[in-house]
Amino acid sequence: IFSKLPKHKTSIFSVMSKMAFEHDAVNLSQGYPNFETDQRLKDLVTQAMNEGYNQYAPLAGIAPLREQIVNKIESLHGKKYDKDAEITVTDGATQALFLAITAFVNPGDEVIVLKPAYDSYEPAIELNGGVPVALQLKGKNYKLDFEEIKQKINAKTRMIIINTPHNPGGNVFSKAEMQQLEQLLEGTDVILLSDEVYEHIVFDDAKHYSASAFPELSKRAIVCASFGKTFHNTGWKMGYCVAPEALMKEIWKVMEVNVFCVHHPTQRAFAEYLRTPKHYLELGKFYQKKRDKFLDLIKNTAFKFKPAKGTYFQLLDYSEITNEPDVEFSRRLIKEYGIASIPVSAFNKDNLDHRQLRFCFAKTDDTLEKAAEILKKVK
Amino acid sequence: IFSKLPKHKTSIFSVMSKMAFEHDAVNLSQGYPNFETDQRLKDLVTQAMNEGYNQYAPLAGIAPLREQIVNKIESLHGKKYDKDAEITVTDGATQALFLAITAFVNPGDEVIVLKPAYDSYEPAIELNGGVPVALQLKGKNYKLDFEEIKQKINAKTRMIIINTPHNPGGNVFSKAEMQQLEQLLEGTDVILLSDEVYEHIVFDDAKHYSASAFPELSKRAIVCASFGKTFHNTGWKMGYCVAPEALMKEIWKVMEVNVFCVHHPTQRAFAEYLRTPKHYLELGKFYQKKRDKFLDLIKNTAFKFKPAKGTYFQLLDYSEITNEPDVEFSRRLIKEYGIASIPVSAFNKDNLDHRQLRFCFAKTDDTLEKAAEILKKVK
Ligand SMILES: CSCCC(=O)C(=O)O
Ligand SMILES: CSCCC(=O)C(=O)O
Repeated sequence: IFSKLPKHKTSIFSVMSKMAFEHDAVNLSQGYPNFETDQRLKDLVTQAMNEGYNQYAPLAGIAPLREQIVNKIESLHGKKYDKDAEITVTDGATQALFLAITAFVNPGDEVIVLKPAYDSYEPAIELNGGVPVALQLKGKNYKLDFEEIKQKINAKTRMIIINTPHNPGGNVFSKAEMQQLEQLLEGTDVILLSDEVYEHIVFDDAKHYSASAFPELSKRAIVCASFGKTFHNTGWKMGYCVAPEALMKEIWKVMEVNVFCVHHPTQRAFAEYLRTPKHYLELGKFYQKKRDKFLDLIKNTAFKFKPAKGTYFQLLDYSEITNEPDVEFSRRLIKEYGIASIPVSAFNKDNLDHRQLRFCFAKTDDTLEKAAEILKKVK
Repeated sequence: IFSKLPKHKTSIFSVMSKMAFEHDAVNLSQGYPNFETDQRLKDLVTQAMNEGYNQYAPLAGIAPLREQIVNKIESLHGKKYDKDAEITVTDGATQALFLAITAFVNPGDEVIVLKPAYDSYEPAIELNGGVPVALQLKGKNYKLDFEEIKQKINAKTRMIIINTPHNPGGNVFSKAEMQQLEQLLEGTDVILLSDEVYEHIVFDDAKHYSASAFPELSKRAIVCASFGKTFHNTGWKMGYCVAPEALMKEIWKVMEVNVFCVHHPTQRAFAEYLRTPKHYLELGKFYQKKRDKFLDLIKNTAFKFKPAKGTYFQLLDYSEITNEPDVEFSRRLIKEYGIASIPVSAFNKDNLDHRQLRFCFAKTDDTLEKAAEILKKVK
């Protein structure tokens, strides 16, 4: 069998979660909460099933949910999307990203990917015959280098993928950075795929600037969002994307043949739940407490860190502990100490290894305490 | 914007359902039941949510569900799949079909599609740069012509897609036909994509023969199934595919970047529900009553028919009423009479028009009676 993705390996998330399970380790690897989603949300799904919303939904998603999404974006970013032409509810943000890439990337097209990056972007590009052009963000703190991006844009560049707040770096693009990106893309045909799944998880003085908020960006942007990350139910597999009508029309063609539509009762539940903005507006505060707790607990360990400005991931630098490659060290942490993380080299260009591990702090305080107890012992 | 599917039109299902809605017509177009799924299934989803199954499921689906799928196929078709290597739970059968096509169809590859066919096959092939080779089934009763299939197979043939029980034809492949297919494919590298979403909906003396049951077929077959069609919840978007390990490995690569995994609590519910085989074994009887009722009600109309042997669709021949093209006639039926169906030309090669409409009888008796009252008036 001729494989279309011959180099593809099992996702690092599956690998580490499986290993964590086998060794009964405290699992801070794959990004999902180990606490419960709101009981009210579950009750709303139950209500929708009992009210009979159990057959196909419209392809783009149910109207009341699209309306709530439009309202949310308008109130947060001042951009009003057309609910009937510019929104699609998807099977998680992963599917939204896949739809965008599949709708627009043709054989030979180049797509700029800023590394470290979530591991589904590049195989999705390759499946479509596209060429990922990986650009490594600079240094251990993963800084943007606009000059380098500019140099990589050419006639073959179909798309650039950004992710803010940034997984695994924990950075949040500033307004000035978004404006620089805007200048860079002005006058080009490059499509911007903006992965904003951690949009509500920002800390301290950081603010999330969506591509939707910038005219030169939003007219070419497909913005992807996740209910799973925002409402603590990654297993419900729901998210959405927004894009100008001309782009969305192409996305619908792929949506139709890929899954046609997504889980109907869950859509009803989110349509109701989104009517209360505090459900997502307070998320940053909620996770900032988690981050602060985790960092306070580990402040006397041998790990070094710069506090994450966004996402529910914290990078820890272990270079003062050992010079082992991160893949080996992360495996040893599971086997010898019973704690699972993600080696950041898995996300980097050419597996660049800064001796960093990524820890997910979307966990109960109890789990964070257990994790810290273990990390204190690591040497 | 350069479109990857420039010829693609909105799905006939979306078009007809929308028109039915606008004209408040009795809607026998898109294939879904207008009665409720089992309350127990809804309660099982609620239970799973309340028990905390709300985060990512494993990529291939949860183990208890894969186990039930293996048991079901073994008891029905005598083929034992490996639950850890040969099963994937998908976002409906539509996604299963998409995954199979995307995993294996390369630019320039030919895929044989037997027409009339479900309208997602061909665009999925085209998205991957493949070439659909459409073969029209013979006559008004859509008979297989193995000689013609044989002639179309060449070095470029990557895949052949079959659908049994057949939508919209209502045919069910016989054992002899499956064996002929087996002989035809023996010694070739052609992958068989077998769409068996109506597997449990067969009538009279017909029996469903799965590609899983034939050694020469199963070793090259990706078999797709649908819980939505079987358990009356098309809006829960769940199905699965089975395939030999070497094929499944490639499907997983696409699954991972497409959606990663599917709705976790719904998987729990089906894992429990499938433990009771009568939930699917009695489906044929259930729909046979619906078919018989519908056909009895319309026996004195001007429509002619050959009773469907499978699926929940009935073709009606209106050639004695009018010589209008089926697209026009179906629109007139909605606007003037208030009943919606699907013009079969939408599924046929070159929109061949046998003056047939497809009616979905997965409807309450009350709806079927209303539909018949209308059809009696049509001239
Ligand atoms: C679909 S598994 C990946 C979860 C995640 O977003 C992460 O860990 O980065
Ligand atoms: C996803 S809409 C199509 C429903 C269906 O299977 C049909 O009507 O044939």
